[in-house]
Amino acid sequence: MRIDLAYDGTDFKGWATQPGLRTVQGELESALATVLRLPEPPRITCAGRTDAGVHARAQVAHVDVDSHPGVLERRLRRILPDDIRIVSVREAPEHFDARFAAIERRYVYRMTDHPAGPDPLQRRMVAAVPRPLDVDLMNEAAQHLVGEHDFAAFCKQREGATTIRELLMLRTVRGGETIATTVRADAFCHSMVRSLMGCLVAVGERRYPPEFAAEILAGKVRDPRVKVMPAHGLVLEGVVYPPDDELAARVEQARRRRDE
Amino acid sequence: MRIDLAYDGTDFKGWATQPGLRTVQGELESALATVLRLPEPPRITCAGRTDAGVHARAQVAHVDVDSHPGVLERRLRRILPDDIRIVSVREAPEHFDARFAAIERRYVYRMTDHPAGPDPLQRRMVAAVPRPLDVDLMNEAAQHLVGEHDFAAFCKQREGATTIRELLMLRTVRGGETIATTVRADAFCHSMVRSLMGCLVAVGERRYPPEFAAEILAGKVRDPRVKVMPAHGLVLEGVVYPPDDELAARVEQARRRRDE
Repeated sequence: MRIDLAYDGTDFKGWATQPGLRTVQGELESALATVLRLPEPPRITCAGRTDAGVHARAQVAHVDVDSHPGVLERRLRRILPDDIRIVSVREAPEHFDARFAAIERRYVYRMTDHPAGPDPLQRRMVAAVPRPLDVDLMNEAAQHLVGEHDFAAFCKQREGATTIRELLMLRTVRGGETIATTVRADAFCHSMVRSLMGCLVAVGERRYPPEFAAEILAGKVRDPRVKVMPAHGLVLEGVVYPPDDELAARVEQARRRRDE
Repeated sequence: MRIDLAYDGTDFKGWATQPGLRTVQGELESALATVLRLPEPPRITCAGRTDAGVHARAQVAHVDVDSHPGVLERRLRRILPDDIRIVSVREAPEHFDARFAAIERRYVYRMTDHPAGPDPLQRRMVAAVPRPLDVDLMNEAAQHLVGEHDFAAFCKQREGATTIRELLMLRTVRGGETIATTVRADAFCHSMVRSLMGCLVAVGERRYPPEFAAEILAGKVRDPRVKVMPAHGLVLEGVVYPPDDELAARVEQARRRRDE
């Protein structure tokens, strides 16, 4: 079964189940167990395992359960708290895997540099930056990062996992008081978007020239000059999958690379 | 001093100070007293006294205190909680009165009729409606309400106050999953926008024909078929004042009419 969902990450300790903590996966799995009267919560897999405080407007998950999609959709909506939204529940195509079949993830990071801080109604998803940001400089810096690179300098290292990724887009636009950066890549390693943002913001605040991004990337180790930006500005906005007849091949390839 | 501000109304018992309750006016007045080291909180007046749970993106207030606007602005921003945003503090022109000088208030009411309910990140400001809404029918109904009328049927009656208002706009548009109604009037009486919305929604859900709006208006008393819609869908989005040299005349006229 494929489940498309959205959540306000504010009151979750991230996606992944952790004993004793409120997580999106934990809430979903226990809701599924309740609704389907299962003795054990089923195991659910998602496209982007968001950190504590990170939101999603278009998360995709899959779970192997026996039910009618429409019935499951209605029952989950009824039982889940209002910070999780079940957008749809559908029969998944053969070989579908929410994590390994995905060919692209899209995130948007939102900030404001207005001295009054964010609009109170948007403050759960807009980060405040204390200094004015030069968006043109941020986009110049981004040019050094787009493409296929080893993003080790922007990743929390985990043994054995590759840190090579293809960054497809990293573009910042100012709209009114909000500055939004759209980031697209085949996949992201842990805290990568928020580290990329820390690099762009350092340039946007004119603390470093745009070439700073190239220097950090080439260093291949985390640099203390690059801050990890706050989680609450980040929203998973989309996940792209290949056509159904290419799913099996994509899953095979991604498993080999241990993407996430 | 003129203060432009925004707030997330979720955790406030409305604008107006009430002993022992958290209100926007109460927070602001005590912040002013702290910042200006006043023995008593100063009295602050606003353009639209929003109910419990109603938000504002562009509330306007005035207060008679002795301070430098820029200094006051910075200090208020530093001390106020993050569900109140001080957009600006400026010297008010002569005869300015946030309430009586205003010639127009604009509110937007946001709803979704999607079976999944609102986007979790917008749920504090988007009301869920259980049935699909026909926006064209809502706009037909609105035609019966626009103009100068006695809106007693949509007001919580208060002795002595007029319920005659000029409704300048009442227009509903659907954008994606959100249905937004913009309401503009010279002034509103208590719970008027949410009652107008209850009438439009009843028509949009096809429970009554568009002429229902004319029937309710003509009745001049509250009708149990018209629900007061939930507060959290409502945002005060703008207040209009006349040019400075017309302020005195406007205040004089409005005080006579006891507008709010």
